[in-house]
Amino acid sequence: MTASGEEKFIGLYLAPLAEGFPGAFGLTDDCAELEPLPGHSLILKTDRIVEGVHFLSDDAPEDLGWKLLAVNVSDLAAKAARPIAYLMALTVPEKPEPEWMRRFAQGLGEAQNAFGCVLIGGDTDRRPGPLSIAVTVIGEVRSGRMVRRGGARAGDLVYVSGHLGGAALGLALRLRTPAAKQWGVSQDDSAAALARYLRPAPKIGLRAALANHARSAMDISDGLIKDLDRMCRLTGTGARIDLSRLPLAGGVATVMQQDQAAGLRLISAGDDYEILATVAPENAASFETAAARGGVGVTRLGNVVGAEGVIVADAFENTIAIETAGYDHFDDN
Amino acid sequence: MTASGEEKFIGLYLAPLAEGFPGAFGLTDDCAELEPLPGHSLILKTDRIVEGVHFLSDDAPEDLGWKLLAVNVSDLAAKAARPIAYLMALTVPEKPEPEWMRRFAQGLGEAQNAFGCVLIGGDTDRRPGPLSIAVTVIGEVRSGRMVRRGGARAGDLVYVSGHLGGAALGLALRLRTPAAKQWGVSQDDSAAALARYLRPAPKIGLRAALANHARSAMDISDGLIKDLDRMCRLTGTGARIDLSRLPLAGGVATVMQQDQAAGLRLISAGDDYEILATVAPENAASFETAAARGGVGVTRLGNVVGAEGVIVADAFENTIAIETAGYDHFDDN
Repeated sequence: MTASGEEKFIGLYLAPLAEGFPGAFGLTDDCAELEPLPGHSLILKTDRIVEGVHFLSDDAPEDLGWKLLAVNVSDLAAKAARPIAYLMALTVPEKPEPEWMRRFAQGLGEAQNAFGCVLIGGDTDRRPGPLSIAVTVIGEVRSGRMVRRGGARAGDLVYVSGHLGGAALGLALRLRTPAAKQWGVSQDDSAAALARYLRPAPKIGLRAALANHARSAMDISDGLIKDLDRMCRLTGTGARIDLSRLPLAGGVATVMQQDQAAGLRLISAGDDYEILATVAPENAASFETAAARGGVGVTRLGNVVGAEGVIVADAFENTIAIETAGYDHFDDN
Repeated sequence: MTASGEEKFIGLYLAPLAEGFPGAFGLTDDCAELEPLPGHSLILKTDRIVEGVHFLSDDAPEDLGWKLLAVNVSDLAAKAARPIAYLMALTVPEKPEPEWMRRFAQGLGEAQNAFGCVLIGGDTDRRPGPLSIAVTVIGEVRSGRMVRRGGARAGDLVYVSGHLGGAALGLALRLRTPAAKQWGVSQDDSAAALARYLRPAPKIGLRAALANHARSAMDISDGLIKDLDRMCRLTGTGARIDLSRLPLAGGVATVMQQDQAAGLRLISAGDDYEILATVAPENAASFETAAARGGVGVTRLGNVVGAEGVIVADAFENTIAIETAGYDHFDDN
């Protein structure tokens, strides 16, 4: 008997991603060993991405590898956790092409270097159906200092990092939807939007600002409005945000000027991987300073209010109805 | 806006499984927080089970819930780790029937109680294709005391826990294969074999024996011969085991008497979730005593040898060829 197909596969493409981490045992064991620094705890999160749902079958394998790790690290970033490791369960419909695997592992490696974490274990198998990859990421925080999703209080300020709507615009342009062709988005903005869709950049630089100054936080994966509503609802609160304050990604402002409803759909569509946070008013200045020091721009969108629900108001205090409330895996409509 | 379909689903069926574990935050956060006891490290393992591959679509949902956790806890047991928590990514083809989910969660709950671990996070979504569930289990060991897969040395004794072949016999009887109808396995043995297939019992009682006395260990998921070969190969060794020593599950001996090749296929077919270990000869007595104290029977199968490969010898020192080498997800034959 010789080493099996699965072992060769792991040795060739995945074991190099585990180098330098003693507890990964070069992926030769079925388990990994991990110990947080003294006084620290581990933060864990599991998620999966599926072909045809979270990515397109003609996305480049490098981009897929990057995105897989990026969207999971984004969750850690919102908890003020430092990414350290991940496990991956890879299910492929047939024996993967060596060239595809090489490129996929390359994208993972680029993301590992960018975010500072290492593959420590996993599982690979084949079965019919779409390519599906489950990832469990592990981060580290000072014990008890994880920033919770459920912590918003009425009166808190609502902040968001970076810019919104870019990923959805990138996807619409990529799919060449009829509407997208009419928007007249510039070539530069189109390229930037596509990059945001394919290579999201989790806001790991916001860690100190969140850990020291935020009352609650989460990353936006299902759209600004839906995720903000979800976050506030955990403490029986809601939010009122100003339309004019929304930090629009390049090209999204162009869309918004022509068709406000379409623009709002873009900022509500998800995949932005920005971080939403609520901050007590007395900590706002420190939060903004710490964010800037971490290299992450943040924008104050509005306030947490006592009543549930998210209200978006324009400059004339008119309430704007948001057509779509983001993606829900279990809604039937 | 009200709580989304996904949140209601999690709240109804999954949140009760997270009760009593503060770092699970009632599954309302996107991340969980976990801190090992001082002087301990965490052991992590990820795996997935897929409908039609690892279980049949008409398996009872309670059994599926049990098996999902059991097969993952089995890996921890082989590392001498105490199970503490798990995360689950559940992908269902359509909105699950409430009754199905209730029963599935019940099976998970029974397994949690039996093995001592708690659901701390996860992800649920819908997409076409078979039901697929990825689990990451987390256990705890004294720092640096994880029993490795790669530690066998020539001269070690090879041990296995419990009995072999029962799960494969249960599956064959369940599928009513033509051969299985001829075997004349008694009703009691059939029922026991089916139970082993549907409700595997990970050998968590072997923890102290392994932690204190074993040189290497792994659980058998892809068949005795294949997994023993895998374990030894990591240190450039092999094994010689005695056919007459194989601890056969009830009914498997009946098969073996009639058709040795069929019997050997059963013990090589996997799904037994027993633990293979190698033990230095001077520790054999202590290992056996500690195993008995943990309520787990162990059998000495043979020895680790200097040359790679696994040899099975009968009472006349004839070498027995094993037709199947267990399951490999990437082999093409």
